Parts: sequence; structure tokens; C-alpha cells
Amino acid sequence: MSRSLEVVPIGVVRCARTDRADTPVQSALNPDEAAEVHLCPEFADGVCGLAGFDRMWLITWLGDDDHEAGVADLVQTPFLATTERRQVGVFAMRGPRRPNPFGLSLVRIDAIDGEVIHFSGVDVIDGTFVLDLKPYVTRFDRPNGDVRCGWFDEVAMPPAATPSSLRTKASSPIPSVPD
Amino acid sequence: MSRSLEVVPIGVVRCARTDRADTPVQSALNPDEAAEVHLCPEFADGVCGLAGFDRMWLITWLGDDDHEAGVADLVQTPFLATTERRQVGVFAMRGPRRPNPFGLSLVRIDAIDGEVIHFSGVDVIDGTFVLDLKPYVTRFDRPNGDVRCGWFDEVAMPPAATPSSLRTKASSPIPSVPD
Repeated sequence: MSRSLEVVPIGVVRCARTDRADTPVQSALNPDEAAEVHLCPEFADGVCGLAGFDRMWLITWLGDDDHEAGVADLVQTPFLATTERRQVGVFAMRGPRRPNPFGLSLVRIDAIDGEVIHFSGVDVIDGTFVLDLKPYVTRFDRPNGDVRCGWFDEVAMPPAATPSSLRTKASSPIPSVPD
Repeated sequence: MSRSLEVVPIGVVRCARTDRADTPVQSALNPDEAAEVHLCPEFADGVCGLAGFDRMWLITWLGDDDHEAGVADLVQTPFLATTERRQVGVFAMRGPRRPNPFGLSLVRIDAIDGEVIHFSGVDVIDGTFVLDLKPYVTRFDRPNGDVRCGWFDEVAMPPAATPSSLRTKASSPIPSVPD
């Protein structure tokens, strides 16, 4: 399947984070940090009605400048499994290095001011391209009951965890028990 | 922001639906219909560990062959608001005609057999390109408490609703009250 498809940024995230290694790995682990989506002016009319929603999905582009379409290691160690050094297929994890480097973040909508959407829940760096916004709809997006979540059910998810903090934790010696 | 980005299909959906007008508009409204993702063989190793999850997000490409990157009406009448003839911004709805025509569907993982992922919850037609798969993670994807869902809170969401069935309902005369 060699066909490739063209997508365009509809806007960018503006936030205080500039270094991926020090940026929380999931918005749910950093729910209160504020940021903004700045839509390209030509797409601003698309937010009509969005202020009636509490949450939205941000679909972002997490590829580096040298990202090659369709290319990524298919088995990786996720940031949140750094300590365990677990190997996981890229479609069973949420990390950025994917054949199509899409991010999916559930964020809180705080206010909408023209082409600027104020939101909370930062897990990307400043300048990240936004590819799509979709409203969170409970009826569509919330499965009933308990849901098995694979390896995520077996790892710690510290608040505000970043790639750096998780690496540091993994390399720390096990604290000795005082005599 | 004129830069365009390149994405590649990682596989296709195989299912019994061939006509969009007769395909349910949301997987949550058609949760038990079975289908398959056939991954391209070169991406098959990416599913390692996915069988430990009950649910996954399907990110699909809903663009027609003549889709032009970044082009879509920014205010539309969603299928589910056909009766009300409501006008909604494209980022406040989940329909397919978007600047980047991505679909986001939460589906149930039934079984994984090599490069074939059997799932339930069909809202796309046969041959739809799959761009990414991500595991559903309750900790990341489930907001606490009640969540305002804008215009969706005010419309009916009939099981198995399709664009055709919603149009038919909208054009039916209002039943007269018997004397």
C-alpha cells in the first residue's frame, strides 16, 4: 500500500514547554497546566459550537523534522515502562515515534477567543502542529464498565511524569533500608 | 502555515459495509457489528501487546479520492442534527468532511491473528484506510464525572443511525394526533 496522503496543520499549540524530555508524557498526568491552540485564521470558523463542550481531543503531529512517512521502530520501550524495560508494539502504546506520528490528547476546554482555544492538559511542546480537533462525546468515547488496559495496568503513572523523570527513576539505585 | 505533511495507510478496514449513506455514523451506535483491520505486513509487528487491551482507537482516513488537503466547509449540519438542521463548526462535530478527514472510533478488540485485528463497532466502509491504532487507556481517556457534550446533549442518537436513516426521519411528516 504505497499511496501516501497529504495532511495540513490547522494550527499550533502555544505553551511553556520547549523540551520534549521535560514535557509530561500524557495530558491526564498534567491536567491543570494551561496552554493554547492557535488556529490558522482560515480555519477559525470551525470552532462554532465547541464552547459548549467541556473536553476535546487534540490530534497532533509529533514527528520531528526528519520524520520519514511510515518509518518507526515497531517495538519500543514506552516512557512509562522505562523502569521495567518492557518492549511493546507501537500500536499498543501511546508514544510519539509511530509510522504516522499522531498524538491523541484529551484536554479540558477553558475558553475560546476567536481563533485561540485556551485549554488545560499539556503533553506537547510549544509549536506542535495540530491536525484536528474533535469534541469529546461521552456516548461515543466512554466504554461501559472496567476496561483491560494491557501493560498500563501494571506500571506506575506518576503525576507530571516526563521522559527525563522516568529515566532518572529507572537509573536510580534502589534506596537502602536504614539499619 | 502552508507546510503539508505526509501520512501513509498502515492498513485497511475489511467489513460488510460498502455505502457510506447506509453505514452507522458512530461505532458506539453499532457496537456489536464485527469487522477486521488488515495491517500492511510491514507493520504487523506493531501489534505486540495489543491483545491485552479491551479497546482501541482507530484513526482512519475518511477522505474521498477527490479530497483536497485542508479544504472542507467549516460549518456544516452533522448527520445526527439532520432533523434539527443545526449548523455546527467542523471542530465541534465528528463527521468525515474535515480539513484533515480523520475518523476517530473507539472499538472493541475481539482477537488478533497475525496482521488481522478482529474488532466490533463498525462506522466505516470496507476499504477505509487506517492511519493509526492506539490502545484505550482509562487513566488517559476517561474524564471524571459528568462532561458537557454541547449539541450532542440535545439530539437523539438512535442505535445504528445512518446518514440515510437520519435523512428519512428528518423528511417524514410529523405524525398527526388521532382525533
